[in-house]
Amino acid sequence: MTDQVTLTVRELKQSTFAPYGDIIETNGAKSFFINQGTTQRFHDLAEVDVDDRGGRPIISIFRGQAFSLPIPIKMLERHPLGSQAFIPITPYPWLLVVAPAEKDGSPGIPEAFLAGSHQGVSYRKGVWHHPLLSLQKTSDFLVVDRGGEGENLEEFIFSEGGYAIEALPHPHR
Amino acid sequence: MTDQVTLTVRELKQSTFAPYGDIIETNGAKSFFINQGTTQRFHDLAEVDVDDRGGRPIISIFRGQAFSLPIPIKMLERHPLGSQAFIPITPYPWLLVVAPAEKDGSPGIPEAFLAGSHQGVSYRKGVWHHPLLSLQKTSDFLVVDRGGEGENLEEFIFSEGGYAIEALPHPHR
Repeated sequence: MTDQVTLTVRELKQSTFAPYGDIIETNGAKSFFINQGTTQRFHDLAEVDVDDRGGRPIISIFRGQAFSLPIPIKMLERHPLGSQAFIPITPYPWLLVVAPAEKDGSPGIPEAFLAGSHQGVSYRKGVWHHPLLSLQKTSDFLVVDRGGEGENLEEFIFSEGGYAIEALPHPHR
Repeated sequence: MTDQVTLTVRELKQSTFAPYGDIIETNGAKSFFINQGTTQRFHDLAEVDVDDRGGRPIISIFRGQAFSLPIPIKMLERHPLGSQAFIPITPYPWLLVVAPAEKDGSPGIPEAFLAGSHQGVSYRKGVWHHPLLSLQKTSDFLVVDRGGEGENLEEFIFSEGGYAIEALPHPHR
């Protein structure tokens, strides 16, 4: 018998995601034209904060298996030494679960967001988040995070049943 | 009357692109599993080299208009202070034109590559390249390059008619 708390999933918007990091998307972003007007540059959309203890930025691709509802949220992780950005390079929506840090550093009540296929995020350094949750199909993401020495992973396992995602705010895009 | 030299376009492969930078793709890349086996990480695919003169990595999105054949190549540019990575986030192939540097620093004879929609590249610091050339449709790219002070753009205009792309190696993917 589980004792899971259901999380409400909201659409990803900067107004509510701001405490956790930046949304990487063109919608609403400032831009200017370069290359003699043939390219529109949406400039500097997310902070890359990976310098701690000699860290360096690295570019990787994450291929995430698809999860089906209901999705149990039994743990969260965070990277104390650097930000971590995820940008979909396949055209599927995906799910984010983040949580504020309590005074003792442990995660508070999680918040869940549905990201469109055109929305990436950068988690600020030290922000609690669930590992990658693809929906629909196996999905690829470009990832910009920290390489280098040092322990850059903390995990927190919820002592009770944890949480669950049981529904999305609208049909998958 | 023009005096353009036609460039042969080859498919993008690491063996021939290596002098200019890294290809960012999963095909042939080393990977390992994370997140309890639910995510495959293709790790550290491209060098991010943006530290010169206090530079920092920034994440942007470039939206490039589509070019149709024949495509004149009348100039190249380079960024002497940092690498610049382009990864398609829309599913369209694209075209790269790069050139080696001659002893005096000016570009030699360009080389052209057709990149699949699943292929990104990182141009090494100082590599001559043509501004973004999307094909088929307006295309979005995630870009990781250098932010910060300092003059980071050089342009070179070919004194004769320049070059032209007149055909691709196979039908657009």
